Amino acid sequence: MSIRSRPTTLLKRQLGSHVDISEKGCFAASFDSSKISFLPEAVITPRREAEIGIVLDLANKYRVPVTVRGRGTTLMGSAVPVEGGWVIDMLKLNRIEIDEEAGLALLQAGATTASIQHAAEKLGWFYPPDPSSREYCTIGGNIACNAGGMYGGKYGVTRDFVIALRGFLPTGEYFEWGTATKKFAAGLNLRDLWIGSEGMLGVITGAVLKLIPQPTTRWTLLTAFEEEVTALAAARALFRQRIQPAICEFLDRESVMCTEQATGKTLFSGEAERAVILLELAGSTSELNELKPTILAWAQQQALAFRETGSLKEAEELWAVRRKCSGAMFELGDTKLNEDIVVPMRSYEKFAKFLLGLKKKSRLPIPTFGHVQDGNLHVNIMFHGDNPKETKSAEAAVQMLMETVVKLGGAISGEHGIGLAKTPFLRIQHSPAQVRAMQAVKHALDPRGILNPGKMFKEVRIWKYPKLKLRLPWDDKWSSSAAGASPGNASALRLRNRQHLHARRSVGGNGGGLFGSRV
Amino acid sequence: MSIRSRPTTLLKRQLGSHVDISEKGCFAASFDSSKISFLPEAVITPRREAEIGIVLDLANKYRVPVTVRGRGTTLMGSAVPVEGGWVIDMLKLNRIEIDEEAGLALLQAGATTASIQHAAEKLGWFYPPDPSSREYCTIGGNIACNAGGMYGGKYGVTRDFVIALRGFLPTGEYFEWGTATKKFAAGLNLRDLWIGSEGMLGVITGAVLKLIPQPTTRWTLLTAFEEEVTALAAARALFRQRIQPAICEFLDRESVMCTEQATGKTLFSGEAERAVILLELAGSTSELNELKPTILAWAQQQALAFRETGSLKEAEELWAVRRKCSGAMFELGDTKLNEDIVVPMRSYEKFAKFLLGLKKKSRLPIPTFGHVQDGNLHVNIMFHGDNPKETKSAEAAVQMLMETVVKLGGAISGEHGIGLAKTPFLRIQHSPAQVRAMQAVKHALDPRGILNPGKMFKEVRIWKYPKLKLRLPWDDKWSSSAAGASPGNASALRLRNRQHLHARRSVGGNGGGLFGSRV
Repeated sequence: MSIRSRPTTLLKRQLGSHVDISEKGCFAASFDSSKISFLPEAVITPRREAEIGIVLDLANKYRVPVTVRGRGTTLMGSAVPVEGGWVIDMLKLNRIEIDEEAGLALLQAGATTASIQHAAEKLGWFYPPDPSSREYCTIGGNIACNAGGMYGGKYGVTRDFVIALRGFLPTGEYFEWGTATKKFAAGLNLRDLWIGSEGMLGVITGAVLKLIPQPTTRWTLLTAFEEEVTALAAARALFRQRIQPAICEFLDRESVMCTEQATGKTLFSGEAERAVILLELAGSTSELNELKPTILAWAQQQALAFRETGSLKEAEELWAVRRKCSGAMFELGDTKLNEDIVVPMRSYEKFAKFLLGLKKKSRLPIPTFGHVQDGNLHVNIMFHGDNPKETKSAEAAVQMLMETVVKLGGAISGEHGIGLAKTPFLRIQHSPAQVRAMQAVKHALDPRGILNPGKMFKEVRIWKYPKLKLRLPWDDKWSSSAAGASPGNASALRLRNRQHLHARRSVGGNGGGLFGSRV
Repeated sequence: MSIRSRPTTLLKRQLGSHVDISEKGCFAASFDSSKISFLPEAVITPRREAEIGIVLDLANKYRVPVTVRGRGTTLMGSAVPVEGGWVIDMLKLNRIEIDEEAGLALLQAGATTASIQHAAEKLGWFYPPDPSSREYCTIGGNIACNAGGMYGGKYGVTRDFVIALRGFLPTGEYFEWGTATKKFAAGLNLRDLWIGSEGMLGVITGAVLKLIPQPTTRWTLLTAFEEEVTALAAARALFRQRIQPAICEFLDRESVMCTEQATGKTLFSGEAERAVILLELAGSTSELNELKPTILAWAQQQALAFRETGSLKEAEELWAVRRKCSGAMFELGDTKLNEDIVVPMRSYEKFAKFLLGLKKKSRLPIPTFGHVQDGNLHVNIMFHGDNPKETKSAEAAVQMLMETVVKLGGAISGEHGIGLAKTPFLRIQHSPAQVRAMQAVKHALDPRGILNPGKMFKEVRIWKYPKLKLRLPWDDKWSSSAAGASPGNASALRLRNRQHLHARRSVGGNGGGLFGSRV
């Protein structure tokens, strides 16, 4: 390629075939699940962690923007190289080792969440955090956005399982935060600062996670309710009994409707389109036997209908229904503002009422489902992107949603992070002093602003950017055989349109203009 | 008092009687459990959190060093105002509220750990982190050093239960990191950066902790072993069965000997001075009944002797014995280098052998006990402070200990933090790049270096400083009625000698010389 800059030439000299400057390679690394696309100048796929030190050393010297990506499943645009420069693709750094005795997983950042879970399960251990993209997404990405999932309420999120990280500072210097031990209190806690830092403070190449003993038995219960307010009030009544199910998922009527239409099945015959709570208990057989009567009595008293699963197969079917819910929503509109807000438990009914009002006022479908034990609800504002009236209404709705959530004492994101998509709302959550403190930390650790520039702090209305019309393997997970395909492999994608913004920028030079105003 | 500086005059004008400049008040805030003493110029005891904003705003303007203290139980010197200035005493900010339904504790930083645990227990909830000073120490202090305790291996440490913090930045600006919800992924994770930051980044005034359901049943087992290497190997054999006791405490022969001499009882008749492992299971009755046979079979196979407790009272007696161990050591020497190192499980036997060698080589008693499920062992190097040969030997021993621990992949501190006492070892744990990154973060958030100056980064050999000859209520917890006394109440202390370093320094002025070289 002719327009290779001096730093990229130097990089290629050092890392040879691990640096890809082809159009195809650069395009594949130009977007994530947000589907907005900015071309990088080169994609580096390291085979040894030390290569990342070399990349960063050069990038820092020549002020080249560096964006790190795992599989790119994030919906937030966090892995899009909006300022061009270099992308580091972590997928080849994917070793997994389980310390059987200490209950630890020792990993490279490119290992997928599901592969870690499988390796642990084989040895009687359990790694609970399970973002719905777990078959595809990497642990590095999970750490970068502090991913959660359905088990968050009882077991915690990624942060609660990370005990050590290693990698490279923006200067290319190696770091280790923490040790492969469950206690560590030596020095400022930069390990945890890195968790949720969205690739902006350093590049994580390895992690140690703690595991918990694998529960031997699971039991699933599906309950249906007239509508959302009663369902959420019922959930609270359960929690008041000090019962913490392993999973407790809520689906509002619109979500149930989407799922029922997509699958052609009703969850309860005669009880179509009800709000639903889906519970899983996990533990030893005796533990579960102790809990079941209480939970069944609760269901009897609170629910319109309920159904226990008799077998693992039947339970799997129920969970499959839950998982179909997100993709099925595209029947309601071609564009989704997927928000993963968090509401404190005490505000559940207030929030449910607000949401009913929001649906009415916006005249948009806003199917909502999520993790009712930790208040992390996925609010999906559906609209048609080419309809200006709907678009305006969706924008107003998301703004009102975020303001309400924060007023209720909740959070604008529970497990996705800010990336680009949530940047317009960061300052609803955080005061100017708080944002300044974050920016000061970012600047202190990455004074040249090379790592994932353009994210978190600068307001971007991501939904106004043109989106690639392509389908990613995890877009609708019920649709078959997509497993294994990856945006890192462009040919695996059913591209319908390769429209993208040509954001390639000259890297190198004095760079002052590139970074001056960012942090 | 005549030597009041201008900033202190201004402070007094704003906060009146909440500012104490009396000699008695300043002396009581001049030391912590490390018993080295540096006088502050004033002690502020806020009644409202907002007063802390006022203090910091002034301090930042006039470059006055500010040290925050809870009860001062830390052994690390972390709460000693080594550069004088002002001390903020948090003890009056001690409100506790339990959110019964969501399982959260909403607290002010001055609440004691035990009072939080009691409030939670009353409502069927459990807050596991339990530093041995829990009846005295505050949650603010626990967060500042990321305190652990006996439950760390199964349930985690303070960090694992903190979900939100509020307080004031060094500039006096208010902050809230996180919300009262179990998920939060909005912006850089400064909440967790604050955990373990030892009062150096901001002043935490309030916290939200998550709670877990209170286990209904407990069961205790005491096991004795020939010596340390076999005991630790036996523990590993237990953990290999995926069994995680709530508590699993190890005491080496020297620790057992100290305890037996202090109490005048042997733990097992006919098995005096054996290495010991003390286990507690916690859970539902059925869960425990399921586990007991496996654990008894393990004890049968591995231990020289073992004893189940038949009653809660008997169990309490056993735990009382464990708790006596630390204080009883002063029979072996008047000075203790109390190290809370962490060793990875795979290195337990190697470490046990190293420790036997260290005892031999140093010719010092080094009783060692601790939390064997998370590798956090308390290594107590005992010597007579006025004996130069012993002192030299102790210094060499602690240096060798720290180097060995890090070589084995462990940590120089698991739950105490660095403060002053561990400063000579920080750079064994952390590379120059890592220390620079920490210092950059500190400087970014506290550019004038007013918060807890002199800690963590600057090497101090704390054992060379003269120590106050006084006894704190928690020094030997088996000795009676000391509960309720506090160093904040100087008259409660049995002072034998008020010898201390007069470190009072002029605050205010241009201040450049005070902070120029620190960070």
